[in-house]
Amino acid sequence: MANQEVENLSVVVHGVQDLRLENRPVPNPGPNEVLLRMHSVGICGSDVHYWQQGRIGDFVVKKPMVLGHEASGTVVKVGSSVTHLKQGDRVAIEPGVPRETDEFCKTGRYNLSPTIFFCATPPDDGNLCRFYTHNANFCYKLPDNVTFEEGALIEPLSVGIHACRRAGVALGSKVFICGAGPIGLVSLLVAKAMGAAHIVICDLSASRLDKAKEVGADFTLQISRETPQQIAQKVEELLGCMPEITIECTGAESCIQTGIYATRSGGTLILVGLGPAMVNIPIVDAAVREVDIRGIFRYCNTWPMAISMLSSGRVNVAPLVTHRFPLEQALEAFETTRKGLGVKVMLKCDQSDQNP
Amino acid sequence: MANQEVENLSVVVHGVQDLRLENRPVPNPGPNEVLLRMHSVGICGSDVHYWQQGRIGDFVVKKPMVLGHEASGTVVKVGSSVTHLKQGDRVAIEPGVPRETDEFCKTGRYNLSPTIFFCATPPDDGNLCRFYTHNANFCYKLPDNVTFEEGALIEPLSVGIHACRRAGVALGSKVFICGAGPIGLVSLLVAKAMGAAHIVICDLSASRLDKAKEVGADFTLQISRETPQQIAQKVEELLGCMPEITIECTGAESCIQTGIYATRSGGTLILVGLGPAMVNIPIVDAAVREVDIRGIFRYCNTWPMAISMLSSGRVNVAPLVTHRFPLEQALEAFETTRKGLGVKVMLKCDQSDQNP
Amino acid sequence: MANQEVENLSVVVHGVQDLRLENRPVPNPGPNEVLLRMHSVGICGSDVHYWQQGRIGDFVVKKPMVLGHEASGTVVKVGSSVTHLKQGDRVAIEPGVPRETDEFCKTGRYNLSPTIFFCATPPDDGNLCRFYTHNANFCYKLPDNVTFEEGALIEPLSVGIHACRRAGVALGSKVFICGAGPIGLVSLLVAKAMGAAHIVICDLSASRLDKAKEVGADFTLQISRETPQQIAQKVEELLGCMPEITIECTGAESCIQTGIYATRSGGTLILVGLGPAMVNIPIVDAAVREVDIRGIFRYCNTWPMAISMLSSGRVNVAPLVTHRFPLEQALEAFETTRKGLGVKVMLKCDQSDQNP
Amino acid sequence: MANQEVENLSVVVHGVQDLRLENRPVPNPGPNEVLLRMHSVGICGSDVHYWQQGRIGDFVVKKPMVLGHEASGTVVKVGSSVTHLKQGDRVAIEPGVPRETDEFCKTGRYNLSPTIFFCATPPDDGNLCRFYTHNANFCYKLPDNVTFEEGALIEPLSVGIHACRRAGVALGSKVFICGAGPIGLVSLLVAKAMGAAHIVICDLSASRLDKAKEVGADFTLQISRETPQQIAQKVEELLGCMPEITIECTGAESCIQTGIYATRSGGTLILVGLGPAMVNIPIVDAAVREVDIRGIFRYCNTWPMAISMLSSGRVNVAPLVTHRFPLEQALEAFETTRKGLGVKVMLKCDQSDQNP
Ligand SMILES: NC(=O)c1ccc[n+]([C@@H]2O[C@H](COP(=O)([O-])OP(=O)(O)OC[C@H]3O[C@@H](n4cnc5c(N)ncnc54)[C@H](O)[C@@H]3O)[C@@H](O)[C@H]2O)c1
Ligand SMILES: NC(=O)c1ccc[n+]([C@@H]2O[C@H](COP(=O)([O-])OP(=O)(O)OC[C@H]3O[C@@H](n4cnc5c(N)ncnc54)[C@H](O)[C@@H]3O)[C@@H](O)[C@H]2O)c1
Ligand SMILES: NC(=O)c1ccc[n+]([C@@H]2O[C@H](COP(=O)([O-])OP(=O)(O)OC[C@H]3O[C@@H](n4cnc5c(N)ncnc54)[C@H](O)[C@@H]3O)[C@@H](O)[C@H]2O)c1
Ligand SMILES: NC(=O)c1ccc[n+]([C@@H]2O[C@H](COP(=O)([O-])OP(=O)(O)OC[C@H]3O[C@@H](n4cnc5c(N)ncnc54)[C@H](O)[C@@H]3O)[C@@H](O)[C@H]2O)c1
Ligand SMILES: [Zn+2]
Ligand SMILES: [Zn+2]
Ligand SMILES: [Zn+2]
Ligand SMILES: [Zn+2]
Repeated sequence: MANQEVENLSVVVHGVQDLRLENRPVPNPGPNEVLLRMHSVGICGSDVHYWQQGRIGDFVVKKPMVLGHEASGTVVKVGSSVTHLKQGDRVAIEPGVPRETDEFCKTGRYNLSPTIFFCATPPDDGNLCRFYTHNANFCYKLPDNVTFEEGALIEPLSVGIHACRRAGVALGSKVFICGAGPIGLVSLLVAKAMGAAHIVICDLSASRLDKAKEVGADFTLQISRETPQQIAQKVEELLGCMPEITIECTGAESCIQTGIYATRSGGTLILVGLGPAMVNIPIVDAAVREVDIRGIFRYCNTWPMAISMLSSGRVNVAPLVTHRFPLEQALEAFETTRKGLGVKVMLKCDQSDQNP
Repeated sequence: MANQEVENLSVVVHGVQDLRLENRPVPNPGPNEVLLRMHSVGICGSDVHYWQQGRIGDFVVKKPMVLGHEASGTVVKVGSSVTHLKQGDRVAIEPGVPRETDEFCKTGRYNLSPTIFFCATPPDDGNLCRFYTHNANFCYKLPDNVTFEEGALIEPLSVGIHACRRAGVALGSKVFICGAGPIGLVSLLVAKAMGAAHIVICDLSASRLDKAKEVGADFTLQISRETPQQIAQKVEELLGCMPEITIECTGAESCIQTGIYATRSGGTLILVGLGPAMVNIPIVDAAVREVDIRGIFRYCNTWPMAISMLSSGRVNVAPLVTHRFPLEQALEAFETTRKGLGVKVMLKCDQSDQNP
Repeated sequence: MANQEVENLSVVVHGVQDLRLENRPVPNPGPNEVLLRMHSVGICGSDVHYWQQGRIGDFVVKKPMVLGHEASGTVVKVGSSVTHLKQGDRVAIEPGVPRETDEFCKTGRYNLSPTIFFCATPPDDGNLCRFYTHNANFCYKLPDNVTFEEGALIEPLSVGIHACRRAGVALGSKVFICGAGPIGLVSLLVAKAMGAAHIVICDLSASRLDKAKEVGADFTLQISRETPQQIAQKVEELLGCMPEITIECTGAESCIQTGIYATRSGGTLILVGLGPAMVNIPIVDAAVREVDIRGIFRYCNTWPMAISMLSSGRVNVAPLVTHRFPLEQALEAFETTRKGLGVKVMLKCDQSDQNP
Repeated sequence: MANQEVENLSVVVHGVQDLRLENRPVPNPGPNEVLLRMHSVGICGSDVHYWQQGRIGDFVVKKPMVLGHEASGTVVKVGSSVTHLKQGDRVAIEPGVPRETDEFCKTGRYNLSPTIFFCATPPDDGNLCRFYTHNANFCYKLPDNVTFEEGALIEPLSVGIHACRRAGVALGSKVFICGAGPIGLVSLLVAKAMGAAHIVICDLSASRLDKAKEVGADFTLQISRETPQQIAQKVEELLGCMPEITIECTGAESCIQTGIYATRSGGTLILVGLGPAMVNIPIVDAAVREVDIRGIFRYCNTWPMAISMLSSGRVNVAPLVTHRFPLEQALEAFETTRKGLGVKVMLKCDQSDQNP
């Protein structure tokens, strides 16, 4: 790989609206790491956000940072103490790797570890590049019948899995999902796979709702000027009862309010969407009807089971990919996502294999 | 309904191997009851058992008892205080109705209430007859797109639901099921609907395994002379890993042993099958690998969600029905079940409608 | 009891600030009821609220209503179908009795049943009177070593039990409680009994904090002008770490905010206090740290275990009673509670026994 | 520490009944380790077992092994990457340290990791010696008000914590404990601290039951020739009801049977005791009454909360220590434990401080 050392094309955000394709050295794997030839990397709303705003909440881009965290690739070199992976293995990458064995790690909620490494969250570099090293324990071998793109999509799928798990989606659940962006759609896919009986999804955009219908929504609800209470009422009418579970995937204050009004007593409102820091909500209505309000932060313990699901064909994420670009056209790809075209844009990082 | 009072053809067990079709009076619903015109009633292994042995464990047939507890029908009369049902409603019947508001009822585990009424468990009469009264709170209205037979099959399906719930079947679970009789099959259907990724099912009988394959088993394993450890080994090979969950649906001592050896550390062995009172099991292996052993007794809180599942098409129980007989041919129907032919035999109790 | 029929002195709210002591007929128990000679009835904030405001939220006093729901008494007559109680039994009364066997009852969360009967919630009469009938299944026999007043205090104690259960208080938990009124204090008692290691409680009032210290608070924090973030900071300093659990017992908007900031990632904020319908809260902070927000509505399944706790001496509620009045002086007793004097005021309804 | 390098007196088992006190080199801490001057180390039944039998199940002493795993000491040197501990810190040692970041670690059940390091489980050395290195993440700083011996006792206490947690001991629980050895006693202490209302403990030995009474048992039951059913009956009589939870701490087959008969429907039987590999048990009785059978393997995530409990005085383990010996008299100390004298024997490893 001699000449590749100067041939690691990477998508780097340098500051607000300053996104560059540049060459970086090919890194060397540490003892517990693997070096990967990247294959497929999806663009996430947060990638666009760091590019457009230079920050998300308290996370600020202070030095150039490689973007990308929805990724899969092939092992080209293994660190000295890695035993469960070998050269040539196709893997999906879990982007969050705890740095400390703290109480959160020990109790199985490592996503909450405050010092966690996370691809493309400042100051940690992501994997939208040709070559990338990662902790081998957070690279998961893909079976032959799972494509690289499916492998990359495990990342957003994991958000849906974590949301549906914390929601307690169960056989026969009625579920209401706010927002039909990529996150709303993966929540929909997962809720169905977990046995939800009927799902209503709402959005402002008719085209997004069409996609939701395509991937399995039982009912769609296009929102225009209704009040939260009115939307809750419509959801109940569509389902024939109030949903036990609402999964909020927009971050909009009005949707959080709707989520409280809409959810059945004793049910759960999951907050996935991240919007304004302070919101005004009908807390007494939630409290006295024991509607639990539970946020999620990314995910933990999702890759192995996501691979099982994909491998067994129980979940079909392929329809989420609407656009593909070679890595060289990354800027164009980012423009596509910024404009809200399609659902998921994939960057193809391996020049010798641009297949799904 | 004047002349029907002497026209309530019923299937009654009088003692060991003494099964009779006889006329009983049409009952009158109490204030909180409904009178039902029965439509479809499945024959259960326990019905055959009461007929052949006159007892199951401590439950002994001491006086003539109407059989049948997998049932659906149409409301023909409502008791004075019933408000949520009306004449003409098609309903599925939950056969267990608690008699007391004891601690089990108050905490939502009413199936464990020691004084519960249960259709066709001595001394309580079942509903394999033309007309039957039942507590209205345990009759559930069927949507138009759920057939009477699907309604009747909610009873065995509920065993599978309760088993899979107590197993904690989750998205991506690997599951091993012992026994491909009706109960093994419903557990299979439910585990898949709850998101299980890969399921192995074993049985002695090749034809039963064919049926399992037909309704969705990923792998089947025909047992002949293998030891429990050998079977556990084969299950692991088929799945590529040990299953987190084993659902034992035979009651055989060797299968319980297999279930312990086969289940992954930290997993769960569910005991559905009921066999010999005392069994010899490798308890230390279960204990030190924290494999929980959890039995189930019937079910609770399953009808509403089962109806949601059937109505949304998430579960397809129709293939389980392999034989149908009009009520008048009940003895022939019981012979069919006794011989182990097919999976589920349905008795059609409504002379004017023998459709599914 | 002939002449008692016109001798059932009762505390009745007729409208805003219109509280009267009047005689009502002694009721007769229905088949499933018991007639009780009332012994001790605590005054609750809600009783005072109905008297002062004539309403709480949507519950409006539209016709005269007997107050009182923290109560115990002696069985003087049993309904025809009551078997587990007999004349002379001393019982504690669970004031909420579900009217329908709906999904909430079947799943063990009967407190959420929308049609539940509840003492002294309009339009249902309470039990601040001499004689009262109640569903026998919701009357619990007191052991000899549990006093009538302890029996009456099971009602507020149950709020604490339900709060701590839903909080998941566990061995070694660090807990922060906002508000040291009766409800904050019972939450404190219960959290300690469930194994909480260290508890901080805050209030505006120094005297209330003294009482908290007396009944077992490890740390008290008197609030004056601090911001929510500052209070959260102080709580962390006192405990040496952030609490896993916050139990909010004031209803104040600022306290809910404090509860979010104060609670450790992955922890739980319990909302017991009921304040303004809409509140402004830092929802993103709760969401991304997976701090669950769970309200409670009264309680369910608490009486039997509360009796066990009291009988075994694990919880000592006696110090909560600071004032006692004979029923005849009910108006004076209500004044005492209205002025916020002491913690719990007990009305003694049995003229022949005014002991605790 | 120059001359100490040849002065690390250690208690080493060389084979069956071959226990030696010998000098070993003082080890050097790796980057993530700390070097500890050992202070107090309790003798466990398993230490005696390795000495007397040379094995426990599949774990065989094949080469000389240092014993001891109930331990506390003082940090004398920290590895290069250790940040949360410093020289002079007094710490309690969690003896199990996972070697791999496998699925069990990631999900918070690291005790089940098959490749875990565990002090004094062959081939891993324990810490019954003067100087010992351990992974710093599994050393927990003791507050000033927790003694070294209390720190050492966190190990057996953790077995009780893990048992009671998996049992779901809750406020008001009735608990039955089989066996009043050290493990039965810590389970008793923990169950009480978690809010159990009434606890029955049984044993063959009157003196052990006296100790149980001393540390808080509500009822004791001395067993001689009763059948399992008879013992179950007595337990019910003592408690006035069947216990929801049984914690089996003997390993005896008859006690496991008793545990099933004794436990209330819907309850849990916890298997802590480890006896014969195969046992004969009344499985149908457990299954149809939904009595869950759950074993435990050591513990996970117990040290921080145990320290909180000890520090707050909620649990008092001091009475468990009945004997103390300086490290030099280790063989005598082992004899004491072998003979079953007292409850817990402590070895004092620090020549300059032999206090508790
Ligand atoms: N909590 C986490 O760990 C986590 C992880 C990933 C994404 N997120 C968040 O999830 C949210 C969704 O992500 P995405 O990638 O799907 O975003 P997106 O912007 O592509 O989709 C959001 C959708 O919500 C719709 N919407 C907006 N306001 C609405 C309203 N008032 N009513 C109905 N629909 C409305 C939009 O039309 C859009 O289709 C974002 O807020 C993102 O920050 C959170
Ligand atoms: N716990 C409950 O509430 C509950 C409810 C319903 C049924 N059951 C029990 O569930 C069990 C199954 O019910 P069913 O109606 O499906 O019975 P069934 O007899 O029709 O099916 C049992 C199947 O197990 C197979 N089998 C028997 N021994 C085997 C072995 N050693 N290895 C592999 N397969 C073996 C048989 O070939 C048969 O196909 C019965 O024991 C029944 O009593 C329990
Ligand atoms: N959810 C339920 O089922 C349920 C049941 C019972 C009571 N409640 C509610 O619980 C709350 C407490 O009940 P209570 O009887 O103890 O009431 P209370 O009024 O006697 O006590 C409330 C305490 O909170 C303190 N407080 C108020 N504002 C504060 C602030 N900003 N910071 C710190 N402390 C503050 C007050 O000084 C007072 O001591 C009430 O809101 C009541 O409605 C709810
Ligand atoms: N699962 C785990 O992780 C784990 C951890 C530690 C200990 N253990 C096991 O826990 C058990 C208890 O440990 P210990 O150190 O307290 O042992 P121990 O031998 O000191 O105590 C056992 C007690 O049980 C009593 N006993 C024996 N047979 C009895 C019977 N038939 N009825 C009533 N009492 C009986 C004995 O008299 C003795 O007092 C052992 O089997 C040990 O191997 C398991
Ligand atoms: Zn993302
Ligand atoms: Zn059946
Ligand atoms: Zn009250
Ligand atoms: Zn030990």
